[in-house]
Amino acid sequence: MSKRIIAIDVGGTNIKYGFVEDGDVKEANSVLTEANRGPEFVLQKLESIIQKYSPTATSAGLAIAGLVDHRAGIVYSPPNLPGWDAIEVKKILTARTGVNCFILNDANSYALGEWIFGGGKGFGNVTAITLGTGVGGGIIAGGKLVLGSVSFAGEIGHMVIDPSGPPCNCGQRGCWESFLGSGYFTQRARSFFEREGKPLADLTPEAVALLGKSGDKYAKFLWDEYGYFLGIGLVNLIHLFDPEIIIIGGGISGAYDLFIDSCLKVLRERVMGFERRKVKITKALLGDSASLLGAYYFALREGDV
Amino acid sequence: MSKRIIAIDVGGTNIKYGFVEDGDVKEANSVLTEANRGPEFVLQKLESIIQKYSPTATSAGLAIAGLVDHRAGIVYSPPNLPGWDAIEVKKILTARTGVNCFILNDANSYALGEWIFGGGKGFGNVTAITLGTGVGGGIIAGGKLVLGSVSFAGEIGHMVIDPSGPPCNCGQRGCWESFLGSGYFTQRARSFFEREGKPLADLTPEAVALLGKSGDKYAKFLWDEYGYFLGIGLVNLIHLFDPEIIIIGGGISGAYDLFIDSCLKVLRERVMGFERRKVKITKALLGDSASLLGAYYFALREGDV
Repeated sequence: MSKRIIAIDVGGTNIKYGFVEDGDVKEANSVLTEANRGPEFVLQKLESIIQKYSPTATSAGLAIAGLVDHRAGIVYSPPNLPGWDAIEVKKILTARTGVNCFILNDANSYALGEWIFGGGKGFGNVTAITLGTGVGGGIIAGGKLVLGSVSFAGEIGHMVIDPSGPPCNCGQRGCWESFLGSGYFTQRARSFFEREGKPLADLTPEAVALLGKSGDKYAKFLWDEYGYFLGIGLVNLIHLFDPEIIIIGGGISGAYDLFIDSCLKVLRERVMGFERRKVKITKALLGDSASLLGAYYFALREGDV
Repeated sequence: MSKRIIAIDVGGTNIKYGFVEDGDVKEANSVLTEANRGPEFVLQKLESIIQKYSPTATSAGLAIAGLVDHRAGIVYSPPNLPGWDAIEVKKILTARTGVNCFILNDANSYALGEWIFGGGKGFGNVTAITLGTGVGGGIIAGGKLVLGSVSFAGEIGHMVIDPSGPPCNCGQRGCWESFLGSGYFTQRARSFFEREGKPLADLTPEAVALLGKSGDKYAKFLWDEYGYFLGIGLVNLIHLFDPEIIIIGGGISGAYDLFIDSCLKVLRERVMGFERRKVKITKALLGDSASLLGAYYFALREGDV
């Protein structure tokens, strides 16, 4: 009999959940997280989601933002879940529901999903990146997810690519995220369009992508610049991990065609032995379901990924 | 019966070699590489080293600088071995000597040695760094050496930490190595001491370390700065790999006590959740024998590391 596993993706705004069987998301739902009501409120919400499916489910996988110790099942200070600190999510939810719960970081879960069920299928060395409000991702090296000593690995968005670069939400300066995150993009777009005497109200990545696709030269310049910064970080990841495939997802990957040429230019210029490597750059295949599928797979393998 | 394995470390200047049994280097020698005489000359030298020990050895491990495809046993354009390009070292030496040869990158070999026999013993997540003319190293994640799709992984010295930083020998700008390699250090020291009206003839890292230990404030400033740049790259490696231990070796690690404080300061300021991580920073234990021991272990495990 195939296993039915509850998969939950806990975000700062929404909790997406459903159950998965044989790698297919059989039912998917979403509720507001209401993170401002504190950890106990959210834990009760998760408890009732798990209980809804528990009669037929064998286990549950939960993807949660922030530093997650996947072995101990403890969540540390997720940026989007105020008041959560060192919460023993695995222990609490398993005790309350009787369903064996597995917890991992949401970006690692995303990477796991894209690796097993999406663009990374069949490869042993995969780097997956999500470009959105923040920059997250995960790394598969030699057929294993890189989790690290307390599973805080894969924080690729906080790789410094310029120590005197823009301030980042994390408190550092010049993190990769501070060049690529949507808020930073909008900020840079605003000052650029103002300087060019073309102030615009909507400078979200989506709006600037539409402008770029319509041929606007200023928007195209911004996306070229975006591809350059994306490329600098990819240079590092290629030098460190030598992946077969780099998968680019997240909301901003909708502008893929606008930034990929300048990104590839940086790779050709800067990666040692680029022509000899087998690395392929590609768009993510799964969209939103990647994290759910990753959480499912993580629970299916009981944390051995 | 324990296995006797020939271990060889092929550098641009010297070839170090010997045989290893039960993790002990039983005999160690060194000859000049004479790399300028071309690949065939060096290959013959390696052949005769292997033949010297072949009657009692079961296999040979060779650590070689540059991009090395360890599966195919091919060496690509090592910076210190002019004229070597896509040389099938494994195939050639195995055919000529009848001894099963295994080839890997020298920095990965170094990391392997320090992991199995040195400061990293017993850990599953280890980052090893050599600070010398260049910056090399290797990464162990989840109990496996990170080799990548064509084993070009672990090129940590060419991680960009400032895209507009100093030019690097590799052709890029602002690689970690361009801040930490000995030549770059000497260059920076020279312009710094000249600016301060204290021109000095010998500004090698060793000389400036002696100055620093004697209390010279300019030398101390330079080592503080060195620790800062070292720290920036370590921030990235910690965010990516979440290691239990970071091992710092190579010639410049002789100045460890002079640069480690400012390095740790950067880590405390910039690493997310630093106090929750288990990462320990330490000096390498093995010195020069690390690469030999790594090459031995690689051959012992027949490339499965």
